[in-house]
Amino acid sequence: MFSRLRHLTTLENLPRECIERLLDRAITMRDACAHGTRKLDLLNGRTILNLFFEPSTRTRTSFELAARRLGADVINFDIGFSSTAKGEELFDTLHTLEAMHLDAIIVRHKVSGTPDELVRHAMSGVSVINAGDGNRAHPTQGLLDALTIRQHRPDFSALTVVICGDVKHSRVARSDVHAFTRLGAKEIRLCGPAPLMPDQQEFPDCKFYNNFDQAIEGADVAIMLRLQKERMSSIELPDEAAYFREYGLDSRRLAMAARGCLVMHPGPINRGIEIAPEVADGPQSRILEQVGNGVFVRMAVLGEMLAR
Amino acid sequence: MFSRLRHLTTLENLPRECIERLLDRAITMRDACAHGTRKLDLLNGRTILNLFFEPSTRTRTSFELAARRLGADVINFDIGFSSTAKGEELFDTLHTLEAMHLDAIIVRHKVSGTPDELVRHAMSGVSVINAGDGNRAHPTQGLLDALTIRQHRPDFSALTVVICGDVKHSRVARSDVHAFTRLGAKEIRLCGPAPLMPDQQEFPDCKFYNNFDQAIEGADVAIMLRLQKERMSSIELPDEAAYFREYGLDSRRLAMAARGCLVMHPGPINRGIEIAPEVADGPQSRILEQVGNGVFVRMAVLGEMLAR
Amino acid sequence: MFSRLRHLTTLENLPRECIERLLDRAITMRDACAHGTRKLDLLNGRTILNLFFEPSTRTRTSFELAARRLGADVINFDIGFSSTAKGEELFDTLHTLEAMHLDAIIVRHKVSGTPDELVRHAMSGVSVINAGDGNRAHPTQGLLDALTIRQHRPDFSALTVVICGDVKHSRVARSDVHAFTRLGAKEIRLCGPAPLMPDQQEFPDCKFYNNFDQAIEGADVAIMLRLQKERMSSIELPDEAAYFREYGLDSRRLAMAARGCLVMHPGPINRGIEIAPEVADGPQSRILEQVGNGVFVRMAVLGEMLAR
Repeated sequence: MFSRLRHLTTLENLPRECIERLLDRAITMRDACAHGTRKLDLLNGRTILNLFFEPSTRTRTSFELAARRLGADVINFDIGFSSTAKGEELFDTLHTLEAMHLDAIIVRHKVSGTPDELVRHAMSGVSVINAGDGNRAHPTQGLLDALTIRQHRPDFSALTVVICGDVKHSRVARSDVHAFTRLGAKEIRLCGPAPLMPDQQEFPDCKFYNNFDQAIEGADVAIMLRLQKERMSSIELPDEAAYFREYGLDSRRLAMAARGCLVMHPGPINRGIEIAPEVADGPQSRILEQVGNGVFVRMAVLGEMLAR
Repeated sequence: MFSRLRHLTTLENLPRECIERLLDRAITMRDACAHGTRKLDLLNGRTILNLFFEPSTRTRTSFELAARRLGADVINFDIGFSSTAKGEELFDTLHTLEAMHLDAIIVRHKVSGTPDELVRHAMSGVSVINAGDGNRAHPTQGLLDALTIRQHRPDFSALTVVICGDVKHSRVARSDVHAFTRLGAKEIRLCGPAPLMPDQQEFPDCKFYNNFDQAIEGADVAIMLRLQKERMSSIELPDEAAYFREYGLDSRRLAMAARGCLVMHPGPINRGIEIAPEVADGPQSRILEQVGNGVFVRMAVLGEMLAR
Repeated sequence: MFSRLRHLTTLENLPRECIERLLDRAITMRDACAHGTRKLDLLNGRTILNLFFEPSTRTRTSFELAARRLGADVINFDIGFSSTAKGEELFDTLHTLEAMHLDAIIVRHKVSGTPDELVRHAMSGVSVINAGDGNRAHPTQGLLDALTIRQHRPDFSALTVVICGDVKHSRVARSDVHAFTRLGAKEIRLCGPAPLMPDQQEFPDCKFYNNFDQAIEGADVAIMLRLQKERMSSIELPDEAAYFREYGLDSRRLAMAARGCLVMHPGPINRGIEIAPEVADGPQSRILEQVGNGVFVRMAVLGEMLAR
């Protein structure tokens, strides 16, 4: 017996068994697709709306594919991305969409906490799924990263993960830490230049590094974050080549990690800035596997929330 | 026996029995959805195209949902909204779309009369549905407003309606007047500042007011129109607060209307400009019911036009 | 026995029997639609993605309709058209899409050769269909033009075709020449102002003209190309009226062609620049037939590539 997920805004308070159930479901989805099933009819007649206030073709497409593979209809609600969409105006949009009898709203918004605000203001049975809010959370990314790791390293209690880059502004890093912590990871290391590192009190159970050589030592998984180039000016490193020297993942550094260390990145990658091409395309790279798992994890989340 | 609707560009000349049939159909659609039917297959294999020359995410989404709930495919033909799209260029686009064997084109255009131009130039059996043209007509809005009223006040012959705001530039007001007149409303009152009021000869059967306190007295329904903020400069009121004092609907004014007066608005609302938050969110507000009815009315229109 | 088409980037090396098989399939599709079949289920469960780096509502819509009529799902991957999307960045996008298990990618890109680059870099079984690349190829346009001609003039060996306008920059002209040559056309004439004509060595089997009166003499088919108005400055003709006088198709010129000469244009047409309204709308115009055939040809291509 379990209580079904109603909304998914963050992994922060999700019980371990719920995370594991979603990962198991994702595997079921993957296996069905691998055996030639092109389309399940779990969500026939359901309607899911993409409400993206920040552009993200990749994540939107991944959700759209997941929903359609389950037989749902998908509506892209094309907000002008310049729209501020906050406060009452945002809630009026929510209520309007609810009045149209949608089953789920997938929301991306630059302001942290917006998906929870929508949950608090929802009047009907609509489900809210966070596709990324500000620096705060990107829960399906956390799940797909956990799934990718679990396929290769099933025992999280033996796992050392390093997350490197602009951790401070990264919702991916936060959702990863939530997922891996809940699944019992042995050690999570956060690494980046000081101005791009969060407060240590936000992550009391993680180890902090500014030196990537030290951070990657013996790691089983290295997750490289995308560097927003506009952040370059705020850090002391003069240019992209310098960033790569200090925080990029190349073959030399990868050799310092544990044997067979998994290389991951939420994409899209900046080659030669946070990751060397030979590592991104090398045998230890799981980057494209992450993309494939993203669709299965989103199928799992939508299926759990919306199937009758 | 009745002649099936081929196109819907305005309610102006629609017979009363046709309007009533569409409202009855909308109720049938609503009841089917309320009893758990998620999808009808009335329009399986039909293709409907959204041709919006003005942006309108809400109306487009409502039509898209309606069409998909009936099993139709929907194509969004993304015209650059800067495109002038008039004359031969517009008709060439129409003929191109007809040559692709679409079943219906839903059109919104800032130039009044464009949908009728398309009907006149159509060469095939394609149906044209007006989703709003200039100041002229927004027939599905008129129908959904009539449906919303009928659910609460079935006897139109006893009905006093006040429509308040920028009546002059409002296609909603025009389609409402057409629908309510045809359905036999006892009295329709139009109210707004003089520069935003139409010529009286355009609405010979309506009563005209510049004073909202007088206009709302005893009304059974109050329809508040959205104020385009760029119109502010053309009227004598110095600012939004002044507009709200003169023409906004607040609790004090609502108390002057008939008991249980229905509060309606085509959305999106400007809180504190044309309507007070406590009225918009209050027990007499039918605004979200209007949104829900919009989908059912559009299902009714598409079903009548396109079902075999 | 034949080898099924895997990708379609150009008609240049397509065997005649393959072209003819695709045209035959297109006729089968057309006949099924003519007999009331609204939807085939040939591609149920398949997912096709539109990857357009240049805007083209008409071609995208034609592909989308074709795919949906065969029961496939269609995803529009909305690239910002300002994106340069080249080199590794483009291939990373390709690999990301492949990792999502798409069945086909329909690509339009301003750089010639991009679809072949995608074929070369594809890692999975995804099919690539060129919807127009630079000046190089627009293979489904070539097929639909061949189909339109074949319906009226089945014997290509007796056929004289003139293609007039900006041949130099036209991917339509190139794909037309490839198709008609392969199908055994008797004579292909290319005509335009000198600065808009390609090198003769690129088209060794075509006849070159700068005088349209001479080029159209006795032609069975006249294909008028769209003039990009921004090209006006590069040619010696001072304005649109002068271009029309020299290279436009009007009734006088059409009378010099063979009796019943087919008038074709890939659209959208510039009335009074490359074609006179009375010719575009006249009895010999096949322009709208081309549009309809475009959907059937694209159904044929998708069906051949993706049906199980």
